[in-house]
Amino acid sequence: MKYYPDADKGLDIALVNREVESAFADHGNDRVQMPPKVYVTLPTGDFRTMPAYLPSLDIAGVKIVNVHPENPAKGLPTVMALTIILETTTGQPVAVLNATGLTDMRTGPAGAIAAKYLAPKKDCVLGIIGTGRQAEAQVRAIARELTVSEVRVWSRNQIHAEAFASRLDTPDNRSVSIERTCDCDILVTTTPSRSPLIQNEWIHEGMHINAIGADAPGKQELDPEILHRARVFVDDPAQAFHSGEINVPISKGLFQTWMIAGTLGEVVIGKRRRERPDEITVFDSTGLAIQDLAIAKIAMQQGKAIDLPFL
Amino acid sequence: MKYYPDADKGLDIALVNREVESAFADHGNDRVQMPPKVYVTLPTGDFRTMPAYLPSLDIAGVKIVNVHPENPAKGLPTVMALTIILETTTGQPVAVLNATGLTDMRTGPAGAIAAKYLAPKKDCVLGIIGTGRQAEAQVRAIARELTVSEVRVWSRNQIHAEAFASRLDTPDNRSVSIERTCDCDILVTTTPSRSPLIQNEWIHEGMHINAIGADAPGKQELDPEILHRARVFVDDPAQAFHSGEINVPISKGLFQTWMIAGTLGEVVIGKRRRERPDEITVFDSTGLAIQDLAIAKIAMQQGKAIDLPFL
Repeated sequence: MKYYPDADKGLDIALVNREVESAFADHGNDRVQMPPKVYVTLPTGDFRTMPAYLPSLDIAGVKIVNVHPENPAKGLPTVMALTIILETTTGQPVAVLNATGLTDMRTGPAGAIAAKYLAPKKDCVLGIIGTGRQAEAQVRAIARELTVSEVRVWSRNQIHAEAFASRLDTPDNRSVSIERTCDCDILVTTTPSRSPLIQNEWIHEGMHINAIGADAPGKQELDPEILHRARVFVDDPAQAFHSGEINVPISKGLFQTWMIAGTLGEVVIGKRRRERPDEITVFDSTGLAIQDLAIAKIAMQQGKAIDLPFL
Repeated sequence: MKYYPDADKGLDIALVNREVESAFADHGNDRVQMPPKVYVTLPTGDFRTMPAYLPSLDIAGVKIVNVHPENPAKGLPTVMALTIILETTTGQPVAVLNATGLTDMRTGPAGAIAAKYLAPKKDCVLGIIGTGRQAEAQVRAIARELTVSEVRVWSRNQIHAEAFASRLDTPDNRSVSIERTCDCDILVTTTPSRSPLIQNEWIHEGMHINAIGADAPGKQELDPEILHRARVFVDDPAQAFHSGEINVPISKGLFQTWMIAGTLGEVVIGKRRRERPDEITVFDSTGLAIQDLAIAKIAMQQGKAIDLPFL
């Protein structure tokens, strides 16, 4: 059995994008096993257990990930994770991966694949709301799939926005107002907001939006009016109802499950698509176990491992 | 983070029995979190993900365990397992345990606790059906809770039965006929049988039976008539319906869920008990995640660990 302590170091993002795209294609073709995430509540947080099997990538395993909002005060990350990989023909545990960094990284490719298929054009202005690790993962992954001519960044904290813009290696990056950030081709929202931050009037026809931040009940970033104007794609309907961008509008009767246009997997296999240049598309990302397995597969190919006795 | 490659070596069985008893008491008092096992099917087997949190033992984690019946032909165990332990206040992964041996060991204490509370007397003749690792775990754990004056062993293969009897360190151990084995105070069945092996007429009043072997749909060891004569206790009702000794009788309409007398947890806390010396009691064991966490706790206190970088 191998342990990968730095599983996220030096990964080839373009390759990760391809594996994640392949995983979503399998999901669209209903070829994966992915039971719902199981939540266990701890005194000041929770942990989620995410098992899955991806036959076409020949990988099976489980990610175990916690969410403890008070951790930063203790010098620990809010989110930490391990992924366990089993050999698919014998069930033998063959790898344990430190999946804390991989968990940040694996959402970037989902956003990148959504942008690749749903963005209005291949040469895009990217708008980024929020400047955390997820914001950076999105820009890096999207820039592998599309030509990003400009990145507009907004954060509540302008110093963070400027620092973020200066850190990027895309050609033209600037910290601007929230309205100006929303005036783009692909908008990516990555905040932990619990009330709509993005106003309907800032969103113009033909845009694509990756709604990344909402990942728990009560979180939302978009004015529900935007969802009414848009065609809304999700990674997984059940997870999106529970904890995605649509969870609050659904709980308030402002969005109905039949309004979902399809899954990202269905988009990747061509069953669903952007239908008109002027329509607004939204990808509501919650994070799937199959993304964790796809990125674990690359990490096991490219990362350094410690050998551990098992049998 | 620590890795325990030989987590089952040298454990103090009496201490494991106490921790498992404590875990069942918490279960009886409804103080544990233990979502249902999640099954994922692989080409020639499956794996199960078993998360839980035991507040009173201050332990949280997940066992991941496969079942691959064709593995022995490849020189691998049918069942292999890892247990991941998270620190309960921060969610940080703190330990990975090789839980293959622990999985065998943790069912012994459940049987021992059932026998302690439900056996007709403290000085017992023990009957053992089957001679695999589970049979040995049961004898070892029960002998810590009760005085075992004699062990009667039966296996389809008499050489196995004789070898098993000679291996035990209880005072009087013998390989006998199946009928004579059943003529005892505590009968333990540990076979993978898919049809009733134990006939109703071999079972006399006042006995206690640990039905251990049935752990998947379609498996059964006892004539359903025995269940009708007995008071049947389970570890967890939902798991027992799905894969315990009662699963086949329930599917055939020969046993009803309301016939269950209670859970082992309720027995440990005194809410349910043996009510008459002449009643037959059955404990239907399927294996709970809380047993895996209880034994992991002891293994982390007593076992040797390899330090692994995590943060």
